[in-house]
This record gives sequence, C-alpha cells and structure tokens, in this order.
Amino acid sequence: MSTLSCTAVWSPACLEHVPGAEIWVGVSTPGTEVPERVAVIRDALADAETVEAVPHDDAVLHAVHDPGLVAHLREVWSRWDEAGFPRDPGQDRVVPYVFPTPAMTAGMPARTPVAVHARAGLWCYDTMTLVGPGTWAAARAAVDVALTAADLVAGGTRLAYGLCRPPGHHATPAGYGGSCYLNNAAVAAEALRRHGFARVAVVDVDAHHGNGTQAVFWTRPDVLYASAHVDPGAGWFPHYVGFADETGADAGLGATCNLPLPPGTGDEGWLAGVERLCSEVAAFGAEAVVVSLGVDAAADDPESPLQVSAGGYHRTGRLIAGLGLPVVAVQEGGYHLPSLGELVRATLTGLANP
Amino acid sequence: MSTLSCTAVWSPACLEHVPGAEIWVGVSTPGTEVPERVAVIRDALADAETVEAVPHDDAVLHAVHDPGLVAHLREVWSRWDEAGFPRDPGQDRVVPYVFPTPAMTAGMPARTPVAVHARAGLWCYDTMTLVGPGTWAAARAAVDVALTAADLVAGGTRLAYGLCRPPGHHATPAGYGGSCYLNNAAVAAEALRRHGFARVAVVDVDAHHGNGTQAVFWTRPDVLYASAHVDPGAGWFPHYVGFADETGADAGLGATCNLPLPPGTGDEGWLAGVERLCSEVAAFGAEAVVVSLGVDAAADDPESPLQVSAGGYHRTGRLIAGLGLPVVAVQEGGYHLPSLGELVRATLTGLANP
Repeated sequence: MSTLSCTAVWSPACLEHVPGAEIWVGVSTPGTEVPERVAVIRDALADAETVEAVPHDDAVLHAVHDPGLVAHLREVWSRWDEAGFPRDPGQDRVVPYVFPTPAMTAGMPARTPVAVHARAGLWCYDTMTLVGPGTWAAARAAVDVALTAADLVAGGTRLAYGLCRPPGHHATPAGYGGSCYLNNAAVAAEALRRHGFARVAVVDVDAHHGNGTQAVFWTRPDVLYASAHVDPGAGWFPHYVGFADETGADAGLGATCNLPLPPGTGDEGWLAGVERLCSEVAAFGAEAVVVSLGVDAAADDPESPLQVSAGGYHRTGRLIAGLGLPVVAVQEGGYHLPSLGELVRATLTGLANP
Repeated sequence: MSTLSCTAVWSPACLEHVPGAEIWVGVSTPGTEVPERVAVIRDALADAETVEAVPHDDAVLHAVHDPGLVAHLREVWSRWDEAGFPRDPGQDRVVPYVFPTPAMTAGMPARTPVAVHARAGLWCYDTMTLVGPGTWAAARAAVDVALTAADLVAGGTRLAYGLCRPPGHHATPAGYGGSCYLNNAAVAAEALRRHGFARVAVVDVDAHHGNGTQAVFWTRPDVLYASAHVDPGAGWFPHYVGFADETGADAGLGATCNLPLPPGTGDEGWLAGVERLCSEVAAFGAEAVVVSLGVDAAADDPESPLQVSAGGYHRTGRLIAGLGLPVVAVQEGGYHLPSLGELVRATLTGLANP
C-alpha cells in the first residue's frame, strides 16, 4: 500500500478506558466501544507519520463544555468507588438510575442532588456510557489528541488525524452519553476558531447524528455543523434529535444541516448526501474542516444499517478533500474490528488525495 | 384486637404487577415492591369491612395525568414484547436506556422517539420502575381502588382505606418512576374535589417525598400537598425535589408544604412534623383529607432511615384524625413484610380513633 500523507495523533492514555459493558434496556451487554479499536486503527496507519498528543490546558475544553461536566467526569469514579455501590462481576462502573427529565421535574425547580448515584443522571443521559477508573484519563487524552491535531493544521499541516477514543460527538455542552464523554470534534473546531480560522465546518460522517456537536454550536454563526446519518425517525440513536428541520437557532440559524438517511441507503445515497454536505460547507465559506470520522455506516458494522462500503468511505474522504480546505479528522464510531482499520485508512487516503 | 372501624377497598388485579427486579445503578436487584405486600396488609385488616374496587372511567385519571402517559402505560408492554428485546432470566420488563434530560436536549427541540426502547425514557424517569405483562392491570386497578374509596367518603364514610398497589405518589402528570405508575392519591384528591369538597389536603406520611403529587397540584390553590419525609438533601429519593422552600407556584403558591427530616429522626421529631402538617391542613381550610399512607418511615424498613415506631404511626393516624375531617387513606410504600401489616393497621386504628 502507498504511504499515507497524513499526520496521525494518538495517546496511549486512550487505552485506559475499559468500560467492559453497556447497560441497554436494563441488561448488561459486552459493548462495542472497546480499547482494541485503537490498536486496530494504529496497525492500519502504520506507515503514516505518528505523533503523541501534547497536553493542553482546559481553556478550549471549558469553552465547549460546562466546567461542571468536566469536574464531574474527573471526580465521579472516585466518589463512586468510595460509596461502594453494588456491582456485577467485571462491571464496577458509574451507571445512573434516576434522570431529571422534564417528565420528572414537571416545571418544578430541581436541585443538584447530593448523592453521587443521583447526581450521575444530571450529567449522563443514558445507561450505556459507563465510567470506570481509566475513563477520565482516556477522555481527557482524547481532547489533547484533538487539540494537538488542530495545532498541526494551524501550523500548516493539510490533514491531521486524531485517533480519539472514547469518541465525542454525542457529548453536549453539559451532558455525556452515547459512549461519548467529551466532544473531541467540537474542541477541535473551537481550537481552529481560536487559531484564526474565521469560519469552521464540522462534517460528521459517523453513522449516527452528532447531537452533542450540534448542541455545542446550535446558536453560533461561525461553526457549521453538517451531518449525514441514519434517520432517528427510523428508530435510531439519538432518537430525540437529528431531524432535517433542525437548522440551528438565534445567530446560529442556518448553520446546522442534517441529512437523515434511511436504513439500507448504500454508497450511492450516502455519497449524494456527502456531496450535499460539501456544498453546504462551501456555501458557508468555511476556512477549515473538522471531520467527525465515524466509520460505523459501513456494511459490516453492528451499530448501523447504512450499508456503506470501504470504497464509499474512500470516496467520502475524496469529496471532502475536494473542498481544498485544511482538515482535522477526529475518530468517532466504528465497531467492526476486522474491518475498522481498513475503513479508517480508506477514508484518510481519500482525504489525503482528492 | 378490636375491630377496625374502617372500610378497606382492594382489587385482586393489584397482584398482577410482578416486576421481579429493579435496575439500580446498572445492577439488577430483587426489588422490594412485591405483590406479597397486598397479602400481608389484607391479613392484618381481616376484621375490617372490605369491598372490591368498582371500575371507573378515565375522566379523573385524565385530569391528573397526561393521556399520553396513560396510553403509554396501557400499551408499552405489548410493544416491548413484540420487539423482542434482550432479557435477563426472570426479568422481561420495560427498562429505558436513554432519557431526554435537559443535559441531552440542551435547548434544542426534541421529538417523540419512534422506537419503543427510546420512547420509554420520555415517560419513565428511572430504571427501577419496570413494566411487565400485569403492570397496567394492576396500576389501573389501584386507581379504581382510590376512586372507590373516594366514592365511599363522598357517600358519608368517615374513613376509607384504599389498598393501592403499585403505589403512586412519585408519578407526576406525565412521568412515572420510583416504583409508581399512576398517582392514586392525586386521583383520590381530584375525585373528592369533583364530589364537592371545595378544598382537599393530601397529607403524605410516606418516608419519601411525593414529588408526583406535588407536581400534580403545584399550581393549584384548591388542593394542599403537605409532606413529612426524609431529607432529599441528605441523599434520598427523589433527590431533585422535596425541599422546604418548595411552596407551589402561581395560583398554587403556598399550597405546598414540605418538611424534610434528617436520617434517624425517630418518633418525637416525626410526630412534631405531622403536627405541623395538620396545622397547615387546618389553616388551609380543607374539607377532606387524602393520606398518602406509606409506612416506610418505620425503623425496620429497608427503604428509609427515619426510625419511626409502630406506635409512632398509630399516633400519626390519631393526629390526622384529630382534624375531624373525612379521610381517604391510600397505600404508598412500606417494604418490610414482617411488620408491614401491623404498621398499616396501627395507622388506620389511629385514623379511626382520634
């Protein structure tokens, strides 16, 4: 295979998050967001220039996320461990049990709970996104990966890839869920803004809608969020948002673009969608692009029904590269270990060779 | 023992709810809200006049709850069963996994999910409150129990007891949780209003704050919600609400009264609290009282640390009876099977003999 013209950033700390399970509809399942994803992707990118993430302070992170969420993620495992909650074997993780939904609080004022087992549901919106002893280190390292990749692009690199794990695009300003804790793509976009790119586009090609990234930039006119994803109206995560008529609000009206796709879409429909996202990016006048590079739209992936091929992901990369803009690509989903490396490599090869 | 001067209402359908488990912090536990509670209480009240609940239409129920919640509870088990979700042995119940908290939706518009496994979290705010094949029949029967007890009081009975199971006081207008599905106490209070009692008080002596009942009457001036309960600020359910400074809103301002009590309170502090609740009821000018009769503040109960004795519950009943008002008592919590019957009987004996 030819050498990959892309600088890849990673961090060994991203391996420290070992959730071991997901709780889904009350049942413990093995989960698919596993540390092995990092090794598989690294192997597939062995010929790319690779650098380790450089530690960054919390300035950009706190611009994207409520510092309360950041503090919660930093501390919750210790509090949980001290409290001695019941656990299933091999599954000693933070899982909320009560959630302050509008149905619960019903218009009444709601306090921040004192008990850690109740407070967990204030910040986490599902039961799938477990926190263990290594979660904070991994999630914070993934942010440093994204920030380091943004630094490279600000310094003139045309394509930097951040091997972020855990993924990030479901993390909202003040909420984590969907196997995401901190929003690496949003952090990269905000960092690029601070590096002087006046308008930045996030192109999300993960199979699922990036409700977190959309939420971060919902009212902002300077960052476009553009996503193709399996239709939440067909019963897919994140279920509550990700519909075509969501276009942002206030100053951000028009700077959100969602293309929900039906199950079974395949390459042709997928690529037509990506083309439309690219038109939006061009019309927006973006000066740099962050790609939320999930590859779970692939046919073999257990987490979506979109049936995109490796060739389709390669052409996805080429279409985005055709914009002629510097690109920070950050890893999102992709869970079929035998094909994951090939899919990421195919996309990056496309991004490197328009 | 002397004969109990109280008409007890029950329904055999209340036995059909057999959750078999609660999911708490991601772990399946046996749960304490079990059908045996009904048998234990019936045995302890064997000398009371007992009648079966009469079926009622949904008029009062729909005044208390969003008809969408009622429809969801009626139908969700069938949808869940059809969808064939994974299940642990002996635990084939509806458990949500994603919840539309403010942290998730982050100010964006949120749709009603198409998929039943996602929609579950729209109506249910925790993972403890499972729905199985008999849940709807039991919850709806408990409403008929409450309505039948209210009919009796409207017809001149001084004290009617509804052996409602599952309990109800954590069910809000549009949300279920805390082992509660439909709010029997709120239904009884609304029924009494419709029977012509101009002002009704709900006195909640369950160990936990009745966030659902408070929510139902939060803005109403005609129904007082008055509760003594273990302080949610000390880390107890419902965690987010139940604090002393919650006094209602709009036209209901002043018609909510919360007395949070510290763990270890014991009889003296508990009864001082109940006396204060009774003063509030008198000052409110209530013409009838609904007692949310949980006995889980008792010393032996696994679900609270309030350390009230059976004698304390008897005196609780006497204090409320001292108001000289007709009373509908509806069963809420109480989970220590060896003492549950005695505790309920002690309270009802007090209510019957001021």
